[in-house]
Amino acid sequence: MLAGRIYHWLSPETATTPARLFRAAHHTLVGAGLVAVVSDTVEPMHAKAATALDIVFWVALAFFTIEYVLRLWTVSEAPWAPVSRPWIARWHWMRGSAAVIDLIALLPLVCLVAGMPEPMARILGAFWILKFGRYSEGMAMVGRVLRNARAPMESLFLAFLVVLLLAATLGYLAERDQPNTAFTSIPASLWWAVVTLTTTGYGDVVPQTVLGRFIAGMVMICGIAVFAFMAGILANSFAEEMHRRQFLRTWDLVARVPFFQSVGAATIAEVAKLLRPQEIPPGAIVARRGAAGDCMYFIASGEVAIEIEPQPIVLGAGQFFGEIALITGSRRSATVVARTRCELLLLDIADFRRLAAQQPDLARVIDEEARRRMGVAPQINVAAPTDG
Amino acid sequence: MLAGRIYHWLSPETATTPARLFRAAHHTLVGAGLVAVVSDTVEPMHAKAATALDIVFWVALAFFTIEYVLRLWTVSEAPWAPVSRPWIARWHWMRGSAAVIDLIALLPLVCLVAGMPEPMARILGAFWILKFGRYSEGMAMVGRVLRNARAPMESLFLAFLVVLLLAATLGYLAERDQPNTAFTSIPASLWWAVVTLTTTGYGDVVPQTVLGRFIAGMVMICGIAVFAFMAGILANSFAEEMHRRQFLRTWDLVARVPFFQSVGAATIAEVAKLLRPQEIPPGAIVARRGAAGDCMYFIASGEVAIEIEPQPIVLGAGQFFGEIALITGSRRSATVVARTRCELLLLDIADFRRLAAQQPDLARVIDEEARRRMGVAPQINVAAPTDG
Amino acid sequence: MLAGRIYHWLSPETATTPARLFRAAHHTLVGAGLVAVVSDTVEPMHAKAATALDIVFWVALAFFTIEYVLRLWTVSEAPWAPVSRPWIARWHWMRGSAAVIDLIALLPLVCLVAGMPEPMARILGAFWILKFGRYSEGMAMVGRVLRNARAPMESLFLAFLVVLLLAATLGYLAERDQPNTAFTSIPASLWWAVVTLTTTGYGDVVPQTVLGRFIAGMVMICGIAVFAFMAGILANSFAEEMHRRQFLRTWDLVARVPFFQSVGAATIAEVAKLLRPQEIPPGAIVARRGAAGDCMYFIASGEVAIEIEPQPIVLGAGQFFGEIALITGSRRSATVVARTRCELLLLDIADFRRLAAQQPDLARVIDEEARRRMGVAPQINVAAPTDG
Amino acid sequence: MLAGRIYHWLSPETATTPARLFRAAHHTLVGAGLVAVVSDTVEPMHAKAATALDIVFWVALAFFTIEYVLRLWTVSEAPWAPVSRPWIARWHWMRGSAAVIDLIALLPLVCLVAGMPEPMARILGAFWILKFGRYSEGMAMVGRVLRNARAPMESLFLAFLVVLLLAATLGYLAERDQPNTAFTSIPASLWWAVVTLTTTGYGDVVPQTVLGRFIAGMVMICGIAVFAFMAGILANSFAEEMHRRQFLRTWDLVARVPFFQSVGAATIAEVAKLLRPQEIPPGAIVARRGAAGDCMYFIASGEVAIEIEPQPIVLGAGQFFGEIALITGSRRSATVVARTRCELLLLDIADFRRLAAQQPDLARVIDEEARRRMGVAPQINVAAPTDG
Repeated sequence: MLAGRIYHWLSPETATTPARLFRAAHHTLVGAGLVAVVSDTVEPMHAKAATALDIVFWVALAFFTIEYVLRLWTVSEAPWAPVSRPWIARWHWMRGSAAVIDLIALLPLVCLVAGMPEPMARILGAFWILKFGRYSEGMAMVGRVLRNARAPMESLFLAFLVVLLLAATLGYLAERDQPNTAFTSIPASLWWAVVTLTTTGYGDVVPQTVLGRFIAGMVMICGIAVFAFMAGILANSFAEEMHRRQFLRTWDLVARVPFFQSVGAATIAEVAKLLRPQEIPPGAIVARRGAAGDCMYFIASGEVAIEIEPQPIVLGAGQFFGEIALITGSRRSATVVARTRCELLLLDIADFRRLAAQQPDLARVIDEEARRRMGVAPQINVAAPTDG
Repeated sequence: MLAGRIYHWLSPETATTPARLFRAAHHTLVGAGLVAVVSDTVEPMHAKAATALDIVFWVALAFFTIEYVLRLWTVSEAPWAPVSRPWIARWHWMRGSAAVIDLIALLPLVCLVAGMPEPMARILGAFWILKFGRYSEGMAMVGRVLRNARAPMESLFLAFLVVLLLAATLGYLAERDQPNTAFTSIPASLWWAVVTLTTTGYGDVVPQTVLGRFIAGMVMICGIAVFAFMAGILANSFAEEMHRRQFLRTWDLVARVPFFQSVGAATIAEVAKLLRPQEIPPGAIVARRGAAGDCMYFIASGEVAIEIEPQPIVLGAGQFFGEIALITGSRRSATVVARTRCELLLLDIADFRRLAAQQPDLARVIDEEARRRMGVAPQINVAAPTDG
Repeated sequence: MLAGRIYHWLSPETATTPARLFRAAHHTLVGAGLVAVVSDTVEPMHAKAATALDIVFWVALAFFTIEYVLRLWTVSEAPWAPVSRPWIARWHWMRGSAAVIDLIALLPLVCLVAGMPEPMARILGAFWILKFGRYSEGMAMVGRVLRNARAPMESLFLAFLVVLLLAATLGYLAERDQPNTAFTSIPASLWWAVVTLTTTGYGDVVPQTVLGRFIAGMVMICGIAVFAFMAGILANSFAEEMHRRQFLRTWDLVARVPFFQSVGAATIAEVAKLLRPQEIPPGAIVARRGAAGDCMYFIASGEVAIEIEPQPIVLGAGQFFGEIALITGSRRSATVVARTRCELLLLDIADFRRLAAQQPDLARVIDEEARRRMGVAPQINVAAPTDG
Repeated sequence: MLAGRIYHWLSPETATTPARLFRAAHHTLVGAGLVAVVSDTVEPMHAKAATALDIVFWVALAFFTIEYVLRLWTVSEAPWAPVSRPWIARWHWMRGSAAVIDLIALLPLVCLVAGMPEPMARILGAFWILKFGRYSEGMAMVGRVLRNARAPMESLFLAFLVVLLLAATLGYLAERDQPNTAFTSIPASLWWAVVTLTTTGYGDVVPQTVLGRFIAGMVMICGIAVFAFMAGILANSFAEEMHRRQFLRTWDLVARVPFFQSVGAATIAEVAKLLRPQEIPPGAIVARRGAAGDCMYFIASGEVAIEIEPQPIVLGAGQFFGEIALITGSRRSATVVARTRCELLLLDIADFRRLAAQQPDLARVIDEEARRRMGVAPQINVAAPTDG
């Protein structure tokens, strides 16, 4: 079915060629469109390349419009959608944040239709930058952190507003009788207060009286307290979210490594706390010959090649490497290169010691393998055995 | 008794209609009063709408005055008040922070009585914004965090003052011989020091000599250190308070869920660490069809409706939902809407795995229910079973 | 012996009347001296009150000089000093940080003797503010935190300098050909770089070229990264130090409470993690009637009075109060006032629940006492029993 | 072999005299070269000392060039290098970050060869400051922290860019119609946005309209949120890295102390969590007579002298001191000086109590030794026994 196939192509998770082509075209057009929108506001650019910028803008806008229509139409083919009522699925999809971003991208079109003059409507194309965030996993995480911290952030914002209004009022009372003062009313004074409370300090409005300056000093100190408080809130929220995601991702990977499958869930939970997941693109160097060996790796998926002579050794999912450097304390004696996209689980030397103390059985298996490898591949000088 | 009934109406916890009406009137008057106070300082606004602003201001002030008198009078009816000596209860109440805020709201009245000119007294109505904070739970938490961090914050403030005075002195010594310098005395130099130490940097006073600029650089670096230190202090204090409150709230909710009542206090303490409480207003969407399923929910109070066909399933206190997405890894196949105000306990997928490892009995119960539901409601495609 | 007695009087820990008088005189003179030094730089003040400021300054300087001589002379009487060689003790003392601060306070005298003009030497009296820090426990803690974080702070400072020099160089390259530029050399450009990197932004030097502005943007972003990194370092160092000190102080207090002495060291270590020490001045209100009861207290030293009728109940070291509110969930039904300086150990309601789960024996003792008290003192309304 | 010997001399870890001389010469030339480069841009300096600055610059550049060539040539002698194929080792080395820094130091030479005018090429010598970072362990740690936090930092940077572009666009829309506005295009507006979002606030571009000022206020608040978020990310990444490194270093030292070798790996892991490593240069004072005794020390390597009469006691690797002050609560009664470079393991009093509770056997050994010492060296007053 066509709709099903298009839905599949438009999904960010799909890895087939048409889906990749679509994403490449989408990202290119977002980038080009943004350049066009921004350049068009520069007078000399506009004079020189008006037609080219016009074409880019309209192509991008058309693309995003068609994309939105296609997504709306085909979402009824989603695996989670009820078969019988396609408009229910479409209505559910429209309220999601990704769909809202796709809708915002149509803002220039909407405004043009609503009668806004073209140059102005075109500037709203700057909102297309949000479409980059739509595909970013990291942005989703930033969003989750902010959402989890919503309650204390709201309280802090209320405190911010309270300080802001009181600062503006007191500043106004202190400064309003000065000649040529900019503190002509509380709203005017609010501008000074926000510039001061955020410690931005443009310097366009500055208190002149001793009392006004004392109030300004207090406001600045409150400003750094607000700052510091927000840092505290976000640091905590971020740490929680980070640990949760990392544990989750590591658990999924650990469960795929045969090496760990014999142990129970409780032990996996312990091990998953110590391992750190790492994604490696094909061709990248995982460990460089001669570098200090401060961690070992388990392969969750993909293949790596250990570049030793006469020919490289290839290791695959479920195997591990880099343990010899941890046991003997020597430097890496071979460069390890990813042959395919790999998911590795990194075990730091500090955590390796902790693991060895907590899980002696696991440690023994690693130790035996290391000994076997050192015996098998002694073609390199003894001081730095093959670091498999 | 009248006093008792009024006390009840004025309590922030009371949920009856008169109490809600009182709070709505109070919040509206605070908002309107603030707008009136702020607008009145803008010349054109004052000229145009003086009478209207006058009325709003005086109504708000009268309301707050009557409120204060009523609260003072009726507090002797509080359940904790000794019956025999009402003035003891009033005296205890007056010293609480909420009563102090209510008193500050009468500042314009007090100042008018004390002979301050009216326009000036009126501006003090800006302090009414504190009355918003009085009802905010979050503000109470901000206050507790600051109180717990009092000792290190005081030390930091002392360090701030020490750096400030030394910076002003050294800046004065370096710059006082420059022509047209603003560093005419140590107090004048203090203004520059505070603007620099907080990294506000208005730019109205800038050192000209090489030595003065070197001192300024040092002061700026001290400034970011003060900032960073304060962030560290507040982050720790906030994290402690947050964990304490969340544990407390979760414990209370967990204790109400029949599902958890069979296990002992030690296990509840473990479970309470993993769950996160969430309050949902009636009508809000808890889980959206098609979204990724990364958590499950226990209902502590209230009712939710799972919108599946032919008719929604209603779940109440003590039941759970959303577990199928965790077990099968599929997306949400049904939207879940709160039918009443709900208190939910959210169990993240990472914590679900931890719980399953630590409390195998609980995990088995959840698993069995999930299997039962997948068998009962197979009307949707198999890849995305009813996510109950 | 006179020297021994003087040593005793000068010790910050001594609590006798002469020692208190000395400290009061010292603090007063530091304050008055600072005011004199600062005021003297303001022309009108100097003109009006020169003689008075003169007297204060010289009295303070004389006092600090005599103090230093006395401390140096009598330190050989310290309990840790070897009896036979007094100058060894003096030499050891002189190298301590407190002695260095006392020496810095003599800077005006030293400079005068060295021939500096009097008005200038006098300004150095601003360093007397350090003498406040000398008596502050909190300042000692700030110092310890900074010392523990020394290694990463030094690395960060090096990174700061690297970015600073590179920023100044690149800014100079970008801007030096502009007409009337302030970027006339790398040292001149350094001033711009430090003002920008600390995000102070005076605005006296601003890049004009597109490249210069791009570099400035990068420098600002590096600046907030430096800031953020420092916050991270200090937050960690502070958290560690705080937990260490609090554990230490709590342990000392717990060991003094007979209630806890029956349990072993391991249990005390557990309990000490949950309790928070609190020092209460005589006459202060510990718990206010009608407030929410979210913690209970153990008395480590001192006496508190529970103000119930017909006459207050006095509790002393080793007893506890406030537990009924935790068990019944009611508000405080009695105000508790400190009769002497008290050291209390505060057990938050969240930690009370944790303790009850971990230490059922302790919980039972508290519970039995609460029941006994509720039976004994039922003269107040049942909804809010005497919160002993 | 010459190459092998030169490789050895150039290694940062080598401690022989030629290697030290090389490093001293290297660091001196980096410092002198930087001074020459910076001074040369100051007109009067250039006029006065052109020849001297010339010589320093060319000597430094020649030194760094020879250094690079030598390193490249001799790296094939590294223990990890394969004997048969020296160019493989060189190629591996060239891609390391240390080699890249050494290459950047040759930038002035490369640019001169490429035809850049000499004064300009010379300024690129400012990049030599990176060579300081190359030898700093701390900088390596800063790098590791940033690398570990790469993913969330990238997301935050993307969010920063999104806010930046939207702020510039909205600012441009709000302000472009003002007379004499600096918001002439979106790129021009971007300069204002970055200055505002980082809260630098030069004040050269300031919005004039009410809408523009409201947007500016929002941007400032976003700015402090970005700041706070980054602080949260880096704080977490730093804490993880710090704990990992410290655990690792402590473990290595603990393993060398005979005192701890009898206990198993699990116990060492526990002990290593409590001890903090500290490196002491020869001649430094470890504990000062008369200071408060809040920690004890284990000697991992080196020798310390306890300065008591009639002659100092020397302790070496595997011994401990300072425990008496912890047990008796007295002050240090003897100064302890490092006789050689020492690696000490510091056990804080709080952690000493924890250790005593968790490891009663270790505590007993320490206690017995303390009693023996107090009996052996009672020549000092009883209140302050020899704090060995």
